[in-house]
Parts: sequence; C-alpha cells; structure tokens
Amino acid sequence: MSDAPSQITEPARTGSSEFDRDTAVRTRESGVHEALLSPGWAIGKALNGGYLLAVLGRALRQALPHPDPFTITAHYLTATVAGPATIRTSMARSGRTVSTASAGLFQTDDRGREIERIRVLATYGDLGALRDDVRTSAKPPAMPPREQCFRATDHPDGDAAVPEMGRRLDLRLDPDTCGWALGAPSMRGEIRAWLELADGRAPDPLSLLMAVDALPPTGFDLGLTGWVPTVELTVHVRARPAPGPLRVAITTRNLAGGYLEEDAEVWDSADRLVAQSRQLARA
Amino acid sequence: MSDAPSQITEPARTGSSEFDRDTAVRTRESGVHEALLSPGWAIGKALNGGYLLAVLGRALRQALPHPDPFTITAHYLTATVAGPATIRTSMARSGRTVSTASAGLFQTDDRGREIERIRVLATYGDLGALRDDVRTSAKPPAMPPREQCFRATDHPDGDAAVPEMGRRLDLRLDPDTCGWALGAPSMRGEIRAWLELADGRAPDPLSLLMAVDALPPTGFDLGLTGWVPTVELTVHVRARPAPGPLRVAITTRNLAGGYLEEDAEVWDSADRLVAQSRQLARA
Repeated sequence: MSDAPSQITEPARTGSSEFDRDTAVRTRESGVHEALLSPGWAIGKALNGGYLLAVLGRALRQALPHPDPFTITAHYLTATVAGPATIRTSMARSGRTVSTASAGLFQTDDRGREIERIRVLATYGDLGALRDDVRTSAKPPAMPPREQCFRATDHPDGDAAVPEMGRRLDLRLDPDTCGWALGAPSMRGEIRAWLELADGRAPDPLSLLMAVDALPPTGFDLGLTGWVPTVELTVHVRARPAPGPLRVAITTRNLAGGYLEEDAEVWDSADRLVAQSRQLARA
Repeated sequence: MSDAPSQITEPARTGSSEFDRDTAVRTRESGVHEALLSPGWAIGKALNGGYLLAVLGRALRQALPHPDPFTITAHYLTATVAGPATIRTSMARSGRTVSTASAGLFQTDDRGREIERIRVLATYGDLGALRDDVRTSAKPPAMPPREQCFRATDHPDGDAAVPEMGRRLDLRLDPDTCGWALGAPSMRGEIRAWLELADGRAPDPLSLLMAVDALPPTGFDLGLTGWVPTVELTVHVRARPAPGPLRVAITTRNLAGGYLEEDAEVWDSADRLVAQSRQLARA
C-alpha cells in the first residue's frame, strides 16, 4: 500500500482508525475533493463497493450542510482501482432539515483521461435531530452469540480464504449460513454475520455504508460461483448506531434473468435497525 | 385539465392511452426534453411520485441507447405541480448492455426562476435481452380474486373518497388491508391490491414505475393520518410484465424517528416478480 500523502487531512472529529484513514477525503475547493483509495479494501482485484460508497459519503458530508446520509444511491460504472481519485459534488437543493446532492468519483486511466467510475445521488440530514419514537415492527435476526460464529480464518484453507478486505474486519458468520464455504450452499440465499472493524473502531453512519456490502455475496449461498458485481446500491441510514458489534443479515429473493437483488439489514447492539439497503447485482 | 399542446409528440410505438398521453415527452434537443404534467395524477394538491417517475423514465428512454429502466432512483426536492416541465438528461456511461444517466425535472416558479423539483439517477438496459432463467424464491402475495376486492368507490363516502389519480386506475384493495379506510387500521403496515389502468392499457416497464407508488400509503395502515411525502424512491424493473392485471403488495417494517421505508413488490399475471421498489418517506 502506498504512503498516504501528507496533504490528505481530516477534520478533527474523525479518528485515526484504518477505516478513517482509508476513507479520508480532502476538500480542495468547493465541489472538488480528493481521496487515496486503499488496496486494503479489495475483494480480489476490485475495491469493495461499500468501502467506495463510504469514501463518497465522506465527501458528501464535507460538501453538504447536513452531516448524515439519510438515503444514498450509487451506480457503479466501471471498476475502481486503488490509488488517487477525484470526487466532484454538486448540490441539488439545500433545505432546512435535509439537503440533496450528486457526486461522481473519477480516476485517470492509463491514457491520462479522466473516467467516471461511480455516480451517486444522496439526501443528507441530521440523524441526531430525529424524534425518539421507534415503531419498528422488524425483528433482529436470530443468530448464535459471536463466540459461536465462524471467522474466515476458521475455514480449512485458513488465511488463503480471506479476501484482503476481510483483514480490515472482524466478521463472524452464522454457522447456519456458512454451508457454501464448504461446498454445500443452502440455496436459501441468506447470509448473517456479526461485524466489527478489526481495529475496534465504533460504527458510525459512514461505516454503515460499508457494512451493508461487507459480507460474502448471497450468490455464494445460491450456488453461484464467480463474481457478482454490483450495478447499483441504495442505503437508508436510519439512526446513529450504538457502539459495539453490528449484526448484518443479507437476503436474495429474486434471482432471475442474470440479475439478483440483495437486501441488507444492519442492527446495532441496542437492537435498533440502523440501516437498510438493496443492491442490484449481475449474477 | 388543460389541453395538451399540439407540439408534444410521441414516438410511434407508444399508445394513446391516458397514461401515455400524460407521460408524453418531447425531446427538443440532445439532453433537453419537455413534458406537460397532468393534474389527472394528483393526490390532493401534489402530483403522484410514481407518475412523475414514469415521465422522467420516458425522457431517459429517449435519451439513452437502451429502452428499459433496470434501476432508477428519484429524490423529490420540492413539490411538482401540473403544467409544463423541462427534463434535462446527462449521460454518465454508455456501455454495451447497460447505460447510466442522470436527469432533473425543472419547473418555472411564479418569479420566473427555474427550480429543480426532482433529481434522478438511472441505469437502463434491454429487458428483452435477458436470460430466461427465473430462480425467484419470493412468492406472489396471497390475495382474494379481483372480484372480491374493494374499489375506492365501494367506500361509504363513495366518489368523494377517491383522489384524482384514483380515476386513472382500476385499483381493487384486498379487504384484509382496508381496515384503515373505515377507521380501523390493522397496524401491520401492509396494503395489497390488484391494479390496472382504468382505460385497460397493458402494463409495461414505464407504467411499473407508476405502479409501485399507486397504492394508498402504508402509513394509513399504521394509524398515521395526513401526508407521507416521498423523499426518495428506487425501483428495480426486472422483467417486462405480461398483459393483464398486476398485484401490488406494499409493506413498512421500520417506522422510526419520523421516517418510514415502504417496500413494494409488483407481480404480473404470469406470477413473475416484475418490479421491486423501496421508498423513504417522511411520516
């Protein structure tokens, strides 16, 4: 991994964890931001879509008058590689309680041309200003305690089974949704896991953008092999998560025509449904 | 309703139904389109979000090299009124199987300023080119036959209970999800209905964009009164629908902090899950 240039600085309130360093964004001028994308968040050759969304989410936080993504959609146009990236943001509307903007992540290709890799549309607000009432009828996923769940390194192949991004996470899979890892997918299209960052950084709205795309793909549990690239990902962040481990449950119910949808729910340690997402992926 | 100006023309393949006339888009020049939004699709004072998404969807179809929305997201910035609107589209990427673009719907306010009402990000493809394999594990909603379902005019208030948009539709609600209309919401946050266009026009990918937002709000079934405005709506169109009545099922599981998510599934007469959507709305 290349050294982070000294001119990438962070506002005081973000921390020094891996996640914060690797999602750091420097605002060069109004609407123009720079990032150095880290190979530490790769799955094979490609950078993880949720990690990239978190980087874009940080740029939008710096561009907008409201701090938290309420609803954010990314369309992944071409594969993003590790290294420098420019993010351009443009405001659509700045209101009292919410504001909306577009963003694009650009990289220079080997011919020196600037190529748009990802385009985003998002509405931000202040999660801390929301009312306290919670009438969520959904229930947290039924899962064994973390200690009884499997880490990727528990796999017979050990360390070789872990994608690079896996080393940034403390991810523990529900044994009931691990069959695919031993050649026996359940064919239900479900995966559940406990999730923390490997260095213990507490979750926040930006890390939730990564969390919804941090699990192995449901495609594996449907017997699909190979890559299931994300076409589009939309995340609703509904509350600031409490500190402590998250539970992430992903499901697919509509694998058809060469595409699938993958829904994710993220529950925090206070049993709050803090984020919901859906992505459209190519099977 | 004002007369449609004669300069609004449609490509030959769209029909002359109410839906087609009211979603007609004229492409003035590359990236600039005009529409005349019809008060026939209002709910109270506001034009229905799904109807507006269909208008934007038609503009994008005309702007892009692929005909069908695969995944489309709209952020509703300020209320859109009946009358003229300009839609500006800008391509992000044109690929072999899919292409991606942004769009904005603008109207002139009473001071003559152009205001952006809605911003959209969408990826289009060719639904007719998708593989035939269907491994959908989701099941169509259990509903009584259409003849046993209730129309809005069955309500004791009769015609007065029907919002203007309701007259464009043949909407028949599952009696099990009608309690709210008689002051007894089930509090489950579910509504199911059979849906056709009142003039019998067959469904297509663009009318599916309207269908996902055509039912009364789940908020009513949760005991909420008053308006539940849509902040953002994302629709996945997964197949061209077969002719005949659609079944639409909407559910809310996360009403909290003054916001709710509303998920919609649209099933066609061949029992295919043709569209899935999620919207974030302010309760």
